Amino acid sequence: MDLTQKIRVIPDFPKKGIMYQDITTLLKDGEAFGEVINAFYEKFKSAGIDYVAAIESRGYLFGAPLAYKLGCGLVIVRKPGKLPAAVERIEYDLEYGTDVLEIHKDAVESGKKVLVIDDLLATGGTAAAACRLIEKIGGKVCAAAFLIELEDLNGRQKFASGTEIFSLLKVA
Amino acid sequence: MDLTQKIRVIPDFPKKGIMYQDITTLLKDGEAFGEVINAFYEKFKSAGIDYVAAIESRGYLFGAPLAYKLGCGLVIVRKPGKLPAAVERIEYDLEYGTDVLEIHKDAVESGKKVLVIDDLLATGGTAAAACRLIEKIGGKVCAAAFLIELEDLNGRQKFASGTEIFSLLKVA
Repeated sequence: MDLTQKIRVIPDFPKKGIMYQDITTLLKDGEAFGEVINAFYEKFKSAGIDYVAAIESRGYLFGAPLAYKLGCGLVIVRKPGKLPAAVERIEYDLEYGTDVLEIHKDAVESGKKVLVIDDLLATGGTAAAACRLIEKIGGKVCAAAFLIELEDLNGRQKFASGTEIFSLLKVA
Repeated sequence: MDLTQKIRVIPDFPKKGIMYQDITTLLKDGEAFGEVINAFYEKFKSAGIDYVAAIESRGYLFGAPLAYKLGCGLVIVRKPGKLPAAVERIEYDLEYGTDVLEIHKDAVESGKKVLVIDDLLATGGTAAAACRLIEKIGGKVCAAAFLIELEDLNGRQKFASGTEIFSLLKVA
């Protein structure tokens, strides 16, 4: 199946000049959605992953089924103020201004292997910050996985050299 | 497995008097998380569900793996301003003020059977609004499923009589 055809591109959302990659058309197609999760599973089934860490909120859509299929734990990286127990936080730069991600300090045990997942790799700022956040609480990030990579934005360069970057679909 | 033991209760979050049901301790336990998804699957595998509709954002954590396991489509019900194509919206009452949910107008085909899912059934306002929203775009909501039901809040009463309400864990 050509999964790229299942993504709907919407010009000028959320602002002028952005070609928004709308994944809802893929999600609602059960066969396409299953193929995506199975592809992630095939890629990582032998990687010894202890935890899948999903970035709020669209990362949950792929991270949760992948953790379920792998039989491993699911960890969530959230926007500030939403996690109820003691958190570690990281502030990171956006195009304009900064943003914050949080994780529970007890989300992973020290030294465990973590796969970070999100729907889209654009500039890489958010996912790379999530990786640093997981390392701050003692996890070892072995890879970061995305449904779509916007190749022209070179988001891969934001990650530490030991982190494998995997994307299922590449968009120029 | 006693899944209730996997939920961490945090007093006074996000405000005084709330006993917050923290599901992150369940999610990070791969065996417990798998048992939850399998239980939802066993309950609904013969119900002829066409779409699982997951409410942003914690509903995604259970809705996405369930849709994957059922092999059906996944539809997302989001907070306002986040969906890029034409949307239907619904405003609903909170304890203080109102809130809004949105769904793509083309999210489900007319007459298709939809299962709505979220992590928590409290007063029922959000999930009942999601059900009405899906009916507005032509879907038939056959059931609403939750990981946890706060029974004392009588959230079940908010739903139309034809909607089956299923919760895996009941908390007084």
